[in-house]
Order: sequence, then C-alpha cells, then structure tokens
Amino acid sequence: MSHHLTDTIVALATPSGVGAIGVLRLSGPDAIRIANSVFHGKDLEAQASHTVHFGTIRNDEGRILDEVLATVFVSPRSYTGENVVEVSCHGSDYIIQELIQLFIQKGARTANPGEYTLRAFLNGRMDLSQAEAVADLIASSSKSSHAIAMQQMRGGFSDEIKKLRQELIDFASLIELELDFSEEDVEFADRKKLRRLLESIQKIITRLRDSFQLGNVIKNGVPVAIVGHTNVGKSTLLNQLLREEKAIVSDIAGTTRDVIEDVVTLSGVQFRFIDTAGIRDTQDAIETIGIERTFERIDKASVVLQLVDATEPTADVAGAIDKVKQRMEGTEKKLLVIINKSDSVKEPAHLDELRQVLVNKLDSNDVPLEISAKLGTNVEKLIDELVSTVNLQRLNSNDVIVTNARHHEALSHAAQALQRAYEGLDIGIPGDLMAQDIREVLHYLGEITGTISTDEVLGNIFKNFCIGK
Amino acid sequence: MSHHLTDTIVALATPSGVGAIGVLRLSGPDAIRIANSVFHGKDLEAQASHTVHFGTIRNDEGRILDEVLATVFVSPRSYTGENVVEVSCHGSDYIIQELIQLFIQKGARTANPGEYTLRAFLNGRMDLSQAEAVADLIASSSKSSHAIAMQQMRGGFSDEIKKLRQELIDFASLIELELDFSEEDVEFADRKKLRRLLESIQKIITRLRDSFQLGNVIKNGVPVAIVGHTNVGKSTLLNQLLREEKAIVSDIAGTTRDVIEDVVTLSGVQFRFIDTAGIRDTQDAIETIGIERTFERIDKASVVLQLVDATEPTADVAGAIDKVKQRMEGTEKKLLVIINKSDSVKEPAHLDELRQVLVNKLDSNDVPLEISAKLGTNVEKLIDELVSTVNLQRLNSNDVIVTNARHHEALSHAAQALQRAYEGLDIGIPGDLMAQDIREVLHYLGEITGTISTDEVLGNIFKNFCIGK
Repeated sequence: MSHHLTDTIVALATPSGVGAIGVLRLSGPDAIRIANSVFHGKDLEAQASHTVHFGTIRNDEGRILDEVLATVFVSPRSYTGENVVEVSCHGSDYIIQELIQLFIQKGARTANPGEYTLRAFLNGRMDLSQAEAVADLIASSSKSSHAIAMQQMRGGFSDEIKKLRQELIDFASLIELELDFSEEDVEFADRKKLRRLLESIQKIITRLRDSFQLGNVIKNGVPVAIVGHTNVGKSTLLNQLLREEKAIVSDIAGTTRDVIEDVVTLSGVQFRFIDTAGIRDTQDAIETIGIERTFERIDKASVVLQLVDATEPTADVAGAIDKVKQRMEGTEKKLLVIINKSDSVKEPAHLDELRQVLVNKLDSNDVPLEISAKLGTNVEKLIDELVSTVNLQRLNSNDVIVTNARHHEALSHAAQALQRAYEGLDIGIPGDLMAQDIREVLHYLGEITGTISTDEVLGNIFKNFCIGK
Repeated sequence: MSHHLTDTIVALATPSGVGAIGVLRLSGPDAIRIANSVFHGKDLEAQASHTVHFGTIRNDEGRILDEVLATVFVSPRSYTGENVVEVSCHGSDYIIQELIQLFIQKGARTANPGEYTLRAFLNGRMDLSQAEAVADLIASSSKSSHAIAMQQMRGGFSDEIKKLRQELIDFASLIELELDFSEEDVEFADRKKLRRLLESIQKIITRLRDSFQLGNVIKNGVPVAIVGHTNVGKSTLLNQLLREEKAIVSDIAGTTRDVIEDVVTLSGVQFRFIDTAGIRDTQDAIETIGIERTFERIDKASVVLQLVDATEPTADVAGAIDKVKQRMEGTEKKLLVIINKSDSVKEPAHLDELRQVLVNKLDSNDVPLEISAKLGTNVEKLIDELVSTVNLQRLNSNDVIVTNARHHEALSHAAQALQRAYEGLDIGIPGDLMAQDIREVLHYLGEITGTISTDEVLGNIFKNFCIGK
C-alpha cells in the first residue's frame, strides 16, 4: 500500500442498496474543486467549512444527475484532515454509480478499503489504535463491545501506552547518555528508580496483556456450551434465552466458524451458544452419541452451562458433573450448574439430597440456581449468573481492555523485553545491552499507537475496513 | 393515515447494514431541541441553518453512544419544510438502534414509510406528482427512467398540468358568472374561444395520456420476447446481450411477476426478456412444446424479437414468421426479425432467397439484420434496433412523459369529461352542464398535482416509499 496523499479519493460512505439517501465522500486536496466543477447552485470553493449547500449535479452535457446537499469541510477540520465534500444524494444505485463515475472523470479516484481512516492516521488526526477502534466500533453489536471500542477510539488506550512510553524514553535517554561517557563509568540513570519504573510498567503491561482474554470475549462474544442429558431441557432453555434478547443482532458476516452458533446479547454482553443446532436436533446427549460431542463443546467454550434434571437419580447427576469437571480440569473455563424441573420432583427429600450433593461437588456455599426452562422461571437470574461469569465489573471502572490481537502480540513482546531488562538490572548488565532491551520495549509499544509502523502493518490493518471508511 | 405535523419523527435515512456511516433524520417542530438534549459539544439550538457540528451523543447515564456530525436545518429551509437535524454516525446497526431509541425516549416517534416526503408535500415544498417522482427517482435504474423521474421531480410535469388548469379555471369562472345572470341570457364566456381552448387542452391531455404507454415501458422496462426454432441461438444471443450490459442492475425487489425475466439495461433503456429461463433450458421451441408457449411470450411482450436460422429451408422460416405475425395482429407490438448464422450458409443463392422472402413478408425496404449470436457479430447493431423500437427521440425533446398509473387514470378521466364538454358545446348545452363538465376536468387534473387529494390517496401513494424518505 503506497500512500498518495496528493490524490483525491471518492467512495460511497453509506451501505449500498436502495434507501432514502446515500452519501458520497470526496477527500483530498482537490475535493472541493472537483465537487464544485459539477455542482450548480453555489460556488463551493467560496464556502466556509462545515456548511451545507443545496444544488444540482450535472454532467458535461448539462444533464441533471441529481439534486443534492453538499457539505464542505475545509482542511484540516475534517475526518481525514484533508479537504472533504460529502454529497448527500437520492439513494438510488444508478444515481450513485453515475455520480462516482462523474467524480472520477473530474480527477478523483475510488478509495481503497479504510483509506479515509488511514489518511486520518497519516495526517495525525488519530493514532493507529484509535484508527483500529473505528472498525471495531462499526462492528460492535453489544453494549460492552461498543463501550470498549468507544473508549479505544476516544484515545483511552493510547493515552495509557503513551504515558508508559514517555517515562521509558526519559530513562532510555539517560542510559544512552551514559554510553557517551562510557569510559568514565558514570551512572546518570538511577538504577533504583529504573527498577521501580520497570516494575510499575511491567505491572501495567501485564495487566493490559492479560485483559485481552476478557477483551476478546467481549468483542467476539462469550462462547457458552450448554450440556446435559437428553430431555434435560437444553433446547427449551436456549429458546427462552433467545426470546430474552432485546437488541437486534445482525448476522455475523464474513466470519467462518466450524460450528453453528446462536448469538444472543444478554444484558449488553454477547454470548455465542456453541453447536446449538445439534442441541435443537435433541437426539444427541451424553448417553446417545457419547461423551465426545459434549467434550468438543466444552473444549470450545469459556463458560459451560450444565443443566441437570432434578427428577433424575442423584448418582446419575453426580456422575455427569464429574465427567464435565474432569474435562475442564486445568483450564480457566467456568462451570455453571443449573437445576431444571425442580418443580416436577415428587419427593422433597430427593431434592434436598440433590442440592446437598451439588453443593459438595461444586465446592460452593450456595445451592445451584433452580429454574424451569419450560415456564421461564428464574431465567432472568440465570442470565445474571451468565453475565457475572464475564468479569464485567472491570468495564465499570476506567480500566483499559485490550481487544485487538495485534495489540496483544505487541504487549506480549514488550513484556518479554521488559522482563529481560529487569533481569539484566539484577545481574548488572552493561548499559548498552540495557538500552537495547528498553529500545525494544519502546518499539513494541510504539507499534500499538503507530509511532512505529510499516506499510505492511498498515496494509493489513486497513484492508479489513469497509470501503468508504 | 392521519397527519400529525406536530410530531417530531425519526428514521434511518440510509440503507440499513454495516457501512462507514449511517444518517439518522429528525424532522418536526422539536427536532433541534430533541437532538440538542443528547448532543454534547455545542448548543444546536443556537446554530444557523445549514451548518454542521461535531460532538458526542450521550444517554442519560452519560455513556457516549457515538461521536457524530449533526447538521441543522431550520424551518422552512429543509426537505420537509420543518426543523430538521441529520445525525451522521458510525455505520453500526447497534449504534443506530441505540440512537433511535434515545431519540424516541426524548420525544420523537419513528417515521412511517414516505412520511418525510409526505410532510414536504403537506408543507407545500413540492406537489404530489413531484413527491411521487422522488420514489421513482430512487427506483430508477436506467438513464431514461432516471431522466423522466428527474424531470417530474423538478416540476416539469406539474407545470404543464398547472398551466392547463389555470386556463380552464379562468373560463370556468366566466361560465359560472353567466349562471348568476342566467335569466338575462348573457354569454361572458366567448364560445368560440372556449372551443379553441378545449381543443388545445384536449390535444395536450391526449398526448400526455398516450405517453403513458412509452413512460410505463421506460419505467418498468420494455418487455421483449425472443422467439424462434430450437437451436436458432436464442440463449446464445441472450447471453451476448447480458454481457453488453454496462450499468449495474440491482435486483428488482418487491415486484412479483408471473414469469422469470432477465433485466438488462442497453444504451440506457431497460429491457425485460420474458421467460428467458425457459429459453436457456433450450428444450422448448415452436416445434417441441408447441406454439402455445411462444404465443404466451408474445402476448406479454411489447417487442417480439424473432430469430430465424439462415441455414433452414426458406419455407419453414416464412411459416414461422406467419404464425408470429398472425398472433400479433391487431396489437401495437413491434416485430424485429433477425437472421442468425448467415455465415454458416453454404449456398449464397439460399441466403439471397431468404433475404427476399423476408423483405416481402415484413413489408420492409431493408433486409433484416444478419448477426452471429455466437461470435457477437452485429450485436451492437441489434441493440440499436432494439432501442429504436422504443420511441426514445421524444426524451430528447422537452416532451413530458407520464409514467405513473395514477396520473394516467386521472388524465383518461379528464379527457372523457373534456370530450363531453366539447360535444356539449356543439349541441349548445346549458351553461350549468358545461360548467359541471369543466369542473370535472379541473378535479381530475387537480388530483395529479395533489391540489385535490384524500387521505386514502395519500396513504396509497406513500405506503410504497421506503422508511426514511
């Protein structure tokens, strides 16, 4: 990807298809001149920034292509930092194609995916992690993924990284100063202070790196496996949960997954119920098609919701829980055991026994939640428990959450280099080696905000944007 | 449909789906106040019309829903004539739903289909035929349908109707004045002048009414039936034509047709090739499944493109043409006979004979066009002939074309009433009867522009609009 900021680019900024209006966006040094050359009604080049003008767009033969509103943004007061004209036309594919052709004829070229946001980055209107958050924001489909993307776009994440970087830069320059005076054996950089700094930075970077697990879950949805015996009510429960959904969740296009999933947003958190197509076929269960299918689901989940049937023998229930727990051993997956059909139990003694067994099995002080999937009893409480498995209280604080795999990788590299520097401090390695480790930390942190970037990295980031953004 | 112009309405004006941006439109007396109550950055109520403002939209808990651009239009300088705020947000379904919910919570209600344009009509920003043209413009998918819709939206059609109406109104008032003095047997309205006026109006109304046949064809596409023997090359030709298509034609959603059709835009005119699915199955032909299938196609078409095979016996070709011509007799359908495979004819004498037979059969001075559907030879010329079957030269003049069935009906009624008035003049009917006929003409003409309209008529017109327009 080469960056010709001298070009003026054009693209449809709104989704394609028939609608009341469509918005075309021109950006670049000639944006206003090009728009003005086909716009009739006013001289757009003489207008103030952030003003809207009604007029017609005509081709060279004088044919009116549309009546439009043209909004003028004068550099640097625009999304890209360049001259921008937004043309709001009637939402007809035919008109939009004609207008784009006309703008190309007048000197614009079609924009690449993400090129507007790339230009905003290259022109210093936002840093790289903010630019990446724009795509996340558009893709966000739940309250929590939206909140994280919004925080990142507004610079919350960048600010934290920049602060760390600045402190390190100050220290690095002191160490590099020592190198200039290396024969005199001086120490400008106070090693005790450096140790404290490295410690505190290490702590922050580790926290950021580790937040990725949560961030990823929030961004992509929490994978949940509903397991349990045949007829325990898995499909009934899932239908209840699907009915709870308040937000409209659009199809997740362009992602390939190896299992069929139902995506449901509950209390602002997105959950992906794994292989629920299988559940709804209802013929599968631990007994009927073997334990393997259940294990596959558990392996893919971060939360396992095990439904037990209150009317079954206690020993059977205990055995099923043992199998699930065994498979989950050594992982950080969370197990949520729920009793279904307790209202159908004839003998109260049986229910008491079941509760006691479950409390013991689960090392819990609380009796598992009892629901009726059929009647919807306590389904709201179940949702609360599901949501609480995701450590969402973090989102209520100002903690920054990492959701981007690229950031996670850079943070991991930075943490490793930092660890080396820290260990070097212990054994008293020479200043030049210390400086190299710190420069490496700086490099990786700089990659996140784009202080350090390559065409390849930029190409990879922006190719996944939609055209027009 | 009742019209509460005191409500403030909100809707997504851009197509739904993921895109760089989405535009929400608020319109009504409280539009600016409602937008301002959730917009942070500036006081929108203090801003001039046609200005754009960057800021955030926050809910009552202070959560930032998005960074947006808000454009303020102060009544009456807006599409609807009301206060309007357009909010340009990130193109995420989640964000758009959240913003719409917030605006509703602050006092707006969701807009009905076409309600913005209905308000523009009710507020006198456009007349009814212009409002109808807005929907036609959005639906237009070819140069010619776009040109007609644009002319109508810009008032070309309305101007003509209004002029006719005004002249008639002047005369009608003179006649009605006579009625006031009926006992004195005076004639304020010069009957000779009236006759001339009625004649000239009749001419214009008839021309407008008759232009509907062309207008309808341009708006909905020209139905073409390709007929011919098995293996004459029908499917090959159709594929060539499909390949010629320059413009992107979107699926025609929401229209039900009883036959499968390929829609192709050629030289700016849309053609609908009837039942081409059948043609491509290739097993059907006059001989194999009988003449009926061909006749059905012919009945649905306004242009019949008959392909004849130059290598077949001349008598067979002549017989096929006779059958087709017989079926078309008495209709205004156009027949276009094209010779295919003339390059495969071994004996030049056979080809000469065929040409002569066709010239005689078709009462034409010109030999039919010879093409090679396989090689694409002369397909461009065939397209020119197809396009010329539609009387498109009219579009280059300033003639107004009627494309709307409602307008056509009103014009037909007006023409009938006018005819009665004209005949009444001949036999000297009393002024009050004359006045009644003229009032009827005025009524029907007024229906077109919406001078006269009912809630039912408005409801029928705007229910077919997209929401947000």
